[in-house]
Parts: sequence; structure tokens; C-alpha cells
Amino acid sequence: MSGNTFGVLYCVTSFGESHGPAYGGVVDGCPPGLELARQDIQKELDRRKPGSSRHVTQRRESDAVEILSGVFEGRTTGTAIGFLVRNEDQRAKDYSAIAEKFRPGHADYTYWQKYGIRDARGGGRASARETVVRVAAGAIAKKWLRERYGVLIRGYLAQLGRRKINFTSWEAVNQNPFFAPDAGIVAQLEKFMDELRESGDSCGARVNVVAENVPVGWGEPVYGRLDADIGAAMMSINAVKGVEIGAGFAAIEQKGSEHGDEMSPEGFLSNNNGGLLGGISTGQDITVSIALKPTSSIRLPRRTINIKGEATTIETTGRHDPCVGIRATPIAEAMLACVLMDHALRHRAQCADVTPPTKVVKARKIN
Amino acid sequence: MSGNTFGVLYCVTSFGESHGPAYGGVVDGCPPGLELARQDIQKELDRRKPGSSRHVTQRRESDAVEILSGVFEGRTTGTAIGFLVRNEDQRAKDYSAIAEKFRPGHADYTYWQKYGIRDARGGGRASARETVVRVAAGAIAKKWLRERYGVLIRGYLAQLGRRKINFTSWEAVNQNPFFAPDAGIVAQLEKFMDELRESGDSCGARVNVVAENVPVGWGEPVYGRLDADIGAAMMSINAVKGVEIGAGFAAIEQKGSEHGDEMSPEGFLSNNNGGLLGGISTGQDITVSIALKPTSSIRLPRRTINIKGEATTIETTGRHDPCVGIRATPIAEAMLACVLMDHALRHRAQCADVTPPTKVVKARKIN
Amino acid sequence: MSGNTFGVLYCVTSFGESHGPAYGGVVDGCPPGLELARQDIQKELDRRKPGSSRHVTQRRESDAVEILSGVFEGRTTGTAIGFLVRNEDQRAKDYSAIAEKFRPGHADYTYWQKYGIRDARGGGRASARETVVRVAAGAIAKKWLRERYGVLIRGYLAQLGRRKINFTSWEAVNQNPFFAPDAGIVAQLEKFMDELRESGDSCGARVNVVAENVPVGWGEPVYGRLDADIGAAMMSINAVKGVEIGAGFAAIEQKGSEHGDEMSPEGFLSNNNGGLLGGISTGQDITVSIALKPTSSIRLPRRTINIKGEATTIETTGRHDPCVGIRATPIAEAMLACVLMDHALRHRAQCADVTPPTKVVKARKIN
Amino acid sequence: MSGNTFGVLYCVTSFGESHGPAYGGVVDGCPPGLELARQDIQKELDRRKPGSSRHVTQRRESDAVEILSGVFEGRTTGTAIGFLVRNEDQRAKDYSAIAEKFRPGHADYTYWQKYGIRDARGGGRASARETVVRVAAGAIAKKWLRERYGVLIRGYLAQLGRRKINFTSWEAVNQNPFFAPDAGIVAQLEKFMDELRESGDSCGARVNVVAENVPVGWGEPVYGRLDADIGAAMMSINAVKGVEIGAGFAAIEQKGSEHGDEMSPEGFLSNNNGGLLGGISTGQDITVSIALKPTSSIRLPRRTINIKGEATTIETTGRHDPCVGIRATPIAEAMLACVLMDHALRHRAQCADVTPPTKVVKARKIN
Repeated sequence: MSGNTFGVLYCVTSFGESHGPAYGGVVDGCPPGLELARQDIQKELDRRKPGSSRHVTQRRESDAVEILSGVFEGRTTGTAIGFLVRNEDQRAKDYSAIAEKFRPGHADYTYWQKYGIRDARGGGRASARETVVRVAAGAIAKKWLRERYGVLIRGYLAQLGRRKINFTSWEAVNQNPFFAPDAGIVAQLEKFMDELRESGDSCGARVNVVAENVPVGWGEPVYGRLDADIGAAMMSINAVKGVEIGAGFAAIEQKGSEHGDEMSPEGFLSNNNGGLLGGISTGQDITVSIALKPTSSIRLPRRTINIKGEATTIETTGRHDPCVGIRATPIAEAMLACVLMDHALRHRAQCADVTPPTKVVKARKIN
Repeated sequence: MSGNTFGVLYCVTSFGESHGPAYGGVVDGCPPGLELARQDIQKELDRRKPGSSRHVTQRRESDAVEILSGVFEGRTTGTAIGFLVRNEDQRAKDYSAIAEKFRPGHADYTYWQKYGIRDARGGGRASARETVVRVAAGAIAKKWLRERYGVLIRGYLAQLGRRKINFTSWEAVNQNPFFAPDAGIVAQLEKFMDELRESGDSCGARVNVVAENVPVGWGEPVYGRLDADIGAAMMSINAVKGVEIGAGFAAIEQKGSEHGDEMSPEGFLSNNNGGLLGGISTGQDITVSIALKPTSSIRLPRRTINIKGEATTIETTGRHDPCVGIRATPIAEAMLACVLMDHALRHRAQCADVTPPTKVVKARKIN
Repeated sequence: MSGNTFGVLYCVTSFGESHGPAYGGVVDGCPPGLELARQDIQKELDRRKPGSSRHVTQRRESDAVEILSGVFEGRTTGTAIGFLVRNEDQRAKDYSAIAEKFRPGHADYTYWQKYGIRDARGGGRASARETVVRVAAGAIAKKWLRERYGVLIRGYLAQLGRRKINFTSWEAVNQNPFFAPDAGIVAQLEKFMDELRESGDSCGARVNVVAENVPVGWGEPVYGRLDADIGAAMMSINAVKGVEIGAGFAAIEQKGSEHGDEMSPEGFLSNNNGGLLGGISTGQDITVSIALKPTSSIRLPRRTINIKGEATTIETTGRHDPCVGIRATPIAEAMLACVLMDHALRHRAQCADVTPPTKVVKARKIN
Repeated sequence: MSGNTFGVLYCVTSFGESHGPAYGGVVDGCPPGLELARQDIQKELDRRKPGSSRHVTQRRESDAVEILSGVFEGRTTGTAIGFLVRNEDQRAKDYSAIAEKFRPGHADYTYWQKYGIRDARGGGRASARETVVRVAAGAIAKKWLRERYGVLIRGYLAQLGRRKINFTSWEAVNQNPFFAPDAGIVAQLEKFMDELRESGDSCGARVNVVAENVPVGWGEPVYGRLDADIGAAMMSINAVKGVEIGAGFAAIEQKGSEHGDEMSPEGFLSNNNGGLLGGISTGQDITVSIALKPTSSIRLPRRTINIKGEATTIETTGRHDPCVGIRATPIAEAMLACVLMDHALRHRAQCADVTPPTKVVKARKIN
């Protein structure tokens, strides 16, 4: 399978470049009969849209999605769902300067060396704008998972640069442009971002995602572990440099007597494993955390080389997110949704005839 | 593709259970003409073998590999390479106690609930013994990558529980049973492990892996990112709860001016990105770090439930690694090797006609 | 991988319905640097376009393709090539009659029973109009195969109903609306089709496709045989009920001494195997033949049932090809091109370092 | 996915060479809880075993299968099922003569040119002995399909060389070494084969396979058509040069009013489509027919070249089936079983929540 498709049964294919005519995608494998309107996708796209606050890129895109197939009289038919998002704000500016030099930390260099050619306009295929496709595919997955299994997938910004953000409530998350789960910290974040933008620099971030009400039994042993597919999905997001599940790197310093989640007839007594054991969901919340690196396109001058291999410097002006992590929450949610939907389908393919033999009253809520 | 196979072109399929007759695997897609002897695989298997020191499980296995196909007169033929490792030390002890209860932190519970049946003997398919297959497949990949492209893949134990281990030299790594890169710390590690074992508890670990001399251009954009496949490969290893590439989670607190690796005609001036930009190799070292959780099978008593869902406690005796991280180094190397080989083949499939247009004198060595 | 994608390295994904807004596709894995203009695809689409003669459906579609990504300054970049063909002539007529009954020989019934819902307008996803996507993807493959390896892929109508058509020349093929390789028979075919159309009935056809100049060595043993992928590709075309390679079904009555193609230093002395031995190309012409069933949508009344399962009759009016085989030639060529391109890439992935050791002066031309 | 694996959810991986130590395979994706004993597989292997009559190769193999994993206390666990069949009769004879020349019609030539190396002993990977793996995997699929859905898959020899064989009864099929469905013709077939063997030549054959009781709705539109996967599966069998479904090539000469199967509340009134419409099962019998070419290894002298490209002649002695079609029936059944099982799982993954809305009393039996 080539690199622009992922998923075994819930299969997402993506195309598009930052300054080309459009982004689009194909979602294949969605069960028939799901109610699906354009707005179901649009509302998720609006959450990740550029230009929604002064802290993100000022590119103006309506990100209006058009559903091209797979839906009939308001319901999915089981056939491939094609969709399109036209690019509107591809500025016709001269990009020759950027086309001749490589931005430190950017995919400019590797695309160029790999393919011998690259669409330098706005980052081409490497642009984070590709994530519209993920968010659209994730919107469908989220809706189906919610309606069919009650699964709820939500994320939030857990750290912005050096500033850690406490989780106070889910309500807070959608009430600020950072997806910060603490209303009290928003003013500080705004000040920090204003200073950062002014300085011409960028910063990294941490985003956490949680899937609630996932039934026990999704995932597969060995290479098809749910962990592996979550790892791949998250690591495929632009700028992500690290992924953790459950206790993550903290597990290194835990003892087994501390890490292994004890059980009772009412469920697990802790959730260090992040809802996954042996690659298979336990019925507890699936908890994932990702590290996003700082944006590579910054105004500060940096040493680099040009396409002739000569030493030069570069200062990247133009419209860029000073922290890609700020808009990453809906993207991470979408990727987790796609992976879970894929495994929901895979699980019922193989194990449709199995009823989990041991009854547990409830996967106790622990986060 | 089902869960016991991974790779697009260098394709590894695995089978076997801890107390069944054998483990085995099929490596498909290996180029023809590679010199390959049983010993090339055996020497890697011996590195991960149980019973090699008092700090790991005392199960006695020779782990002798038999090559069953795909090699003719000492060279690979391009057809599927089948191989087998017989289990020798499956103790015929009564496993009924363990079969009726779930070990906290173990896949016992999820296998049982997913499949409605499980091979409880020694962890069945969930046993870390499955990694013999990975190490065997990785041995072939390592050899081909080394001979064809000069790629060198090596790992080491970077942290054991709370104890961080400095990297002093590669030579040190193979001179102690921990794969610790610092001869001076070995005595301390031994003491720590002796106390841990005595306490009946277990601990986590961090393992780092580095691939040197990877050419620029391997990997694919978007979902086929090398990062994504490395993420999946590492997260598919038993007990892994976190993966980092390059600066990893430290990137959260970096500024863009700090993180983005500047370039000169002699190569990159730092390696925060861990050898990958936009999912494609830069020519620098690829650096990966993983977190392994503490072993779930411990002697200390823990609260759990039985298969009827009733409260009970469990104490796991028997032969278990008190820290699975100690033997994880060859496994992590193997997984990285398989992923890189897959992408080497994928890259030359699509880009065989491309010569990287920009000459860089040398990817300067920075770790 | 879900059912709307095919290919391992040259990967084609398709979406669209007959009376929806558009058809479209994504071609992933195309090597970079190929010159590609809209017209390269359009000219192939025009060959399969409806309304091009009175013998095919009178639906009016310009079938104008829009390339949405993957091409920069006239060359492929190596990233996913998205493309779109808008539907123009979706008549807003009442389709409720057809939506309540099943046409004998049509996918109406199976879609309905499988999904519990179907887009009844114009056949929905089951419409042969989906083949625009195949032809577009095949146009790119044809161009690359031609430029990179000199491969030439051409097809023709070999039989129309009971009328067998002699192969006289390739020139004749594109000079009549049937893709008939014999100018002398065209008047008869026209008369036959006029009568058939008038009778309200339909007929079957045979189409042959030939790939010339395919290098020796493409294909893989066992399940990845080139034969297998050609078999799948052809059997996936609407209305195809049979596939032959080389001597095909005639091989049943051949002796081994007759069938096995002898060799000389100047090449093979016959081509019963159709250019494939052991699933791998021999360097001879690859010859494929397919059987297309008669169109199921006919004016003659037929016994059937309605969606309530009650007996009824149906007469299908509207615009339908009385013989789908007439427009099938470019489609079969396209599918063969996609399969060959996929295997060209797969071959060089694994065997880039192999030079065929035995020199054969020339694969002698025998058809 | 590489060429030695097939299936999306019921995934079969194969390895082994004719004169290597063993053949083996991995079946991945089998649902848990299926009762499975060694004998369930062995009995199917025994049907295809060499040496079972004087009309097939006299190689002596017990073809004893060993199950290595995936079964616990007599039931499948849902994990990968590994199995092994040791080669016993690999004669240590000198194969240098055959290693230096190419047999007309054999994969000798293409393997050599593709890989630059080949295991010449007994055909290596190209040997039809590889079909033990298919038959073993098919045995599991057959059993599950039978027990879970009542699906019954049976085949027979329909033509031997020029001699067509009438279908008289299923009982007859297993009562002669040809799988001929007509007891009355067996003596003639034996005489024909004796003469053929004596003449040093070989012949082709036709094998038909039928799957009964397949529920409506298996299969997918477009590229994932059940037809496509059946086409691939059959074309992947050694020596197969053609595949037909339903009326097959006869559909060319049918009118639409003749071919399209009419329906009544009691089911379909004919079965020209062979149980598939739009790539999806109709509930009728799935009928498949394949053409097998004559064996290429014959005693009669033939013109060929050697590995230096020089003209020479070859006479192939040794133990070869004079008609591979004679043992092909269990193989074709196995391949159809694997494809149907894969699609059974795929169907319930996507459409588990759909009940076919239109009730049809019974798919009337018509063959």
C-alpha cells in the first residue's frame, strides 16, 4: 500500500498540496446506513481551520467540504466516500527565493533530494494543510463510533512550550482558541503567543487525546497491536516527534507493583496502561499523548544551504503557525478515531461470534 | 493485512506461542543474491536469548534457528524465507491457577475477553518470546542494509528504572548483559537488579537505537512517513509504552530557532530531528528511543479478578524477566532494521531514476 | 485494503456514482519527473467517452478531467495525483420505478441485499461509468511504461456477439467506433448493432489486449503472479465473466509438446503462454483476452421481483450501451497498464541489482 | 504486500521449495473457537497427495502436516496458525543438467532472468508442490465456512485433453483418481493417460468448482469484486491459463435476454452469472471453471537454450505429472474457500448491522 493511504478496513486516501487547486480524500469501508451530512464533516474542519485566532496562520480558507460520493439521501451507502476541499487563498506571490533554499527543520530538503523535484509553493505536499483530509475522515469515524458504540474521542492542549496546562474540564477546551482545558490559563497563553510571534520564533506543544467507552477487545496481537496503529497514526502527523500511551515514558521509572493496573469486579483500579494490554483495548479510557516540535518556518535568520549546496542564510516570512500544536487537537482526535474505527471493523470481522466471557460491572473511570 | 504480518515490500509474518511446539516466521521480499547462512541469524538470536545472565528469565532455550526455504547454495533466491525456532523448555507444569485469573498489566485479560479462549501457558501468543521472529527477520535486514548501503544499526540500554546510563562507547554495549554503553555502571546495575529480583518486583527501562549511514530520501510523505512506520514497529514490541524520534518529547520545550537543524555544505549542524524531516531520511543518524514498562508478572501479591469476574489476588511465580528492557536492545534494532529495509526497497521502486540533485559533502556526525 | 483501491506500489483509488456530482481518483506511487499534462489523460478518456457513436449510450458527458495534485510545472512530483471528472448529464428524471425492482443480471439486487440501501440512480456505484477512473489511471501508467521501458499496450474488439473479427492491423482499430481491427467488417458490425438496438436486446463481446516490449522478469512467484494480478484486474471490470492469458482455454486441448514455447538464441518460437511463465514476464508479448457479458439493462420485458420480494416484470428504458464490450477496449488496456506499472516498480524494488544473466538476442515477434 | 501472501482478513502466507527441507504456511485471521485437529487438514492434503495413482507423479511424500501454533485444546485461538509439511523424497540426484538449460513452458527461464539465481532442484519455488500450503489453508476455510454458514465447496475434472466429462454425480468424484464426476468414463481416462504417459507427452485439463449455500451479499464493488479475487486466486495456481465465472466465455454469444438471470419469489430462474452480480454473491451457487495447461516437463525432445544463451535441446526425465489438472481439483476448491472466507469476514466487518431487506424464499438450485 502506498504512502497516501492508511487503514485496513476503514481506509483513508489523501491528496492535495498547499497551493494546488484542492485537497481531497476517499474514505473507503464505512458501514452503510450512517446518517451523514456535509455539516457533520464541516464542523470538525472548522475546529482546525486557519485564521480562527491571531495565534495561528492568517491564511484565509473557508475549508468548505464537498461530499462527492458514497452518500445517498442523507445516508452512507457503503461505497467509497469522496470529498473535496478547494484551496482559496493560494497567494500568487513569488516563491522562487524559498524554492532555492532549504528551511532548517523543514521537509524542503528531503523532498528535494528524494524526488529530484518539489512543489515549493507553501510547502507543497508537506504542508500541514493536508490535515484537512484527516479531520474530514476522522469526523465520519467519530460519528459512527459515537452512534454505534458510544465511543467519545476528545483531546486538549496539555503543554505549550514550557508551560504545562492543568486539566480542569472538557467544557473549557472548546472555549478558547488553544483547546486548553483550563480557562484560567488562557490569558497567559495569549500573552506568551503574542511575545513569541513578535520575537519571530516558534515553540513546541503537547496534545493529549482520550477515547472513552471503547469496548474491551479491539486490537490485535503482535504487529497489529492497537498501540502500533496508534503509534503510526500519531507519528504520521506533521511535526510529531513522540508518542506515549498511558503512563508512557513515566513507565520507565515505575515498579511493576505500581504500574500494573489492579482489577476488581467494578473494573480496573488505575490506568497506567492507557486502556491497552497486549495491543488490545481493556475497556478503560485509551489515553494518548503526543509531542509536536516547533514550526520550522520562522522569521529569525538561520544558516542553511541552497539547492546548489552552497552556504547561505534564510529568514522565512509569510503566514505560518508559530505553534502547530495549537491546531493539532482536532487532528489528533481524528487520527485516533480513524484507527479505532478500523479496529472496530477488524474486531467484528474476526470475533463477531464471541461474547466477552467475563463480566465486569463497569470500567471504572480513572484518569 | 492481518495482524501477524508487517511491511509492504520487506514483509515479515510471525507465528508461535510460548509453550507450543515452535515459533517461526516468513520473510518475503528479500532481494536475491544476499549471502545468508544460519549463523547470520543465530548470532542475533543469541544476543536476545533467555538465560544468558541471572538478570533475565532462567528459561533454557537454545533458540536454534532452522532456515527452511529461500536460500540456495548460501544465497537468497528472492523467494520467501521460512524459518523455525523450536521451543525446548515448555515446562509441563500445571498452569490452571494462572488460567483462571488475570495478571494486572498483562494481556491475559484482553485476549480472554476478545477471543473467548486463550492459550494460558506461558502467556501464549502474548509472550515476549515472539520476539525471536523479529530478531531473525531483523538479522537478514541488518545484513542486507549493511552490505548494500553501509547502514549500521545499533542500540543500547539508556535507562534502567530510575538509573540513567551515560553513553560512553559502542564497545561497552556488548560487554555486559545489559547492553549498557558504560562499563563503569555495570556493577551498580547488577546490584540494583539483584535487589529488585529479591524484592519480587520489576522495573521499566529505556532503550535507544541508532541507524547510521542511511542515505537521504528513504521514507514517504504523509501516512507512509518513515516516522509512522518506526512508530508502529516500536509500539508493536511487547511492553513499549512510548516512542521518540530525535529530540522527542524534549521538542515541546524547544524554540524553533533551537530545534530546527541548521545546514552547511558539510552537512547538518545538529540532529534534533533524529534524521527525519517530513517523514523522509535526511542522511543523518536516525535516532529512536523507547520506553518499556515494568514486567507484569511479579511475585508480589496483587488484587485482581478471576474468569468468573470475582475478586481475588494473584502472585506470579515462575521464570520471568524482572525487566524486559534488558533484553530489548536486539529487538528494537531488529524492528528498525526491518522498517528501514522496507523503505529502502520502496524508495528504489519509485525513485530508482532519481539522483539526489544537491550534493552535501557529508552528513556530519552529531549525536 | 478496501475494495476501491488496487495495486501495491502503483495504487489506484476510485470514487463516484453515475448520478452523483463527480467521479474521481487518486493515483499514488507514480515516479517523479514524468511529464504529465491534462491532455495526456483526456485523450484516453475521449476514447471511452459515451455518445461517440450511435452504437453506445447517448448520455452526453464531456468527461473533462481536472488534475488536482501531484503535478508541478508539468511534471509529476512523486506525491499522490488526485483527479476529478464531473458528471454533467445526470438527468433529474424519476427513478422510483427502477428503485423498486431488480433488473435481471444487474447489481441492483446484490447491492440492495448487501448494504440495505442503494443509490438507484443510473446504477450508482455499479455503473460502468466508474471506468473513467481506471482509464485516467491507466493513461498515466501507459505513458510512464512507454517512456521508461518502451512498453506499448493496445487492445481491440475480437468478437461481437457471434461475429468473430479478424486481426488485420492496429491502424484499423482506431478508425471505427468499435475498436475493430478490420476495416472491412465495420459495415457489418454497424448493421448488426442497429438491428440489435432496434430489437431492444443486447449482446456480449470479446476484447483482446496486448502488451509489447515488456522486459523479462516482471511479476512474482506464487500468489503475486502477474497472471493473478491481471486476472483480478480484468475480472474487476464491469460485465467481465472470463479471462484468458496466452492460449487460454485452448490450452486444455493442447499437448505439452505443442503448448510449451520452444526457445532459440533469437527468442521464443511461439507464444502459447502469452508472455508469462511462472507468473513472470518472459519478454514476449503479454496477451490477454476477456469475455464481456451482454448488458443487463434491456428494453425487452423480463420476469423479476420487487424490493418486497413480489413477482413482477421489468422493461428498462433509458440510455444504455447495447454492448458494453464496444467501449471496453480502452478500459482493458488501462487495467493492464496499471498492473504492469505496479509490477515494474515491484520488480525494481527487489531486483534492482540483478542484470538478467542470459542474453537473448530478441524476443521474436509472434502473435 | 509481497507475493507469498494473499487475503485481506483471512491471510495466507506460504514458503518452501520442492527439494528444500519443508513447505509451510501461516494462516492469519481465522476466528477463534473453531474445532481444528491435524486430521482436518490432513484429509484434504491426502486428496492432492502425489503418488496416489499411476497417473500422477510417483514422488513418495506422506505430506504429513504439523500444526505449530494457533490451536489450543483442539480449538483455534484467533492467533496465527503456523503449519509445516516436511519434504521426504527429495532425491539427491544430480540436477546440473537441468540447471543449465531451460524447459520450454517452464518458469526455469523467468526465475533465472528475474533473480539471477534459482533453485533448480525440482522446480524450486515454482514447483506445484507449493499447493500443499493452499490446500492446508483451504481446509481450515472450508471447515469454518461449512460450520458457520453451511457453505459447501466442491470441484471436479470437467475435461481431460480433448475429452469432455459429463457431470453425473458428486458421489462419483471421489471414487476415482481423476476427480471425474462420471464413473462410466474412468476406464477411458485411464487408457488415455496410459498412452499419454507412454508417449512422453502431457495434456491440459479443465476443472470446475462450485460453492453452494453462499449467503447473498459477500463481495465488494469495483476492484474488490468477489470475481476479481476469485480471478486472482485461480490465476495464481500453477499452470492455470484461463478463468470463467458462470457462463464465462459463452456469454459473448448470448443475448441479454438470454444471459440475464430472471428472478421470482422462489429465487433466480437460471444461473448464467455464476452466483455473482456486481462483484457480490447473489445467494446462488458460485460456479468457476479453470483451464490448466499441459505440464511443461515432458520426455519428448524440445528445442531450447542454455544459460549461456546457446541453442540446445532438452528431454525432461524424472517424476512429473503428465497432467497437472488431475490433482488440481482440491487445489481449486481450496483457493475458492480461502477467497470466500476472506469475503465472509470482510462482509461482516462492514455490514454486520445489515439484514438483507428483501426476503427470497430460496435461491432455487440451478446448475
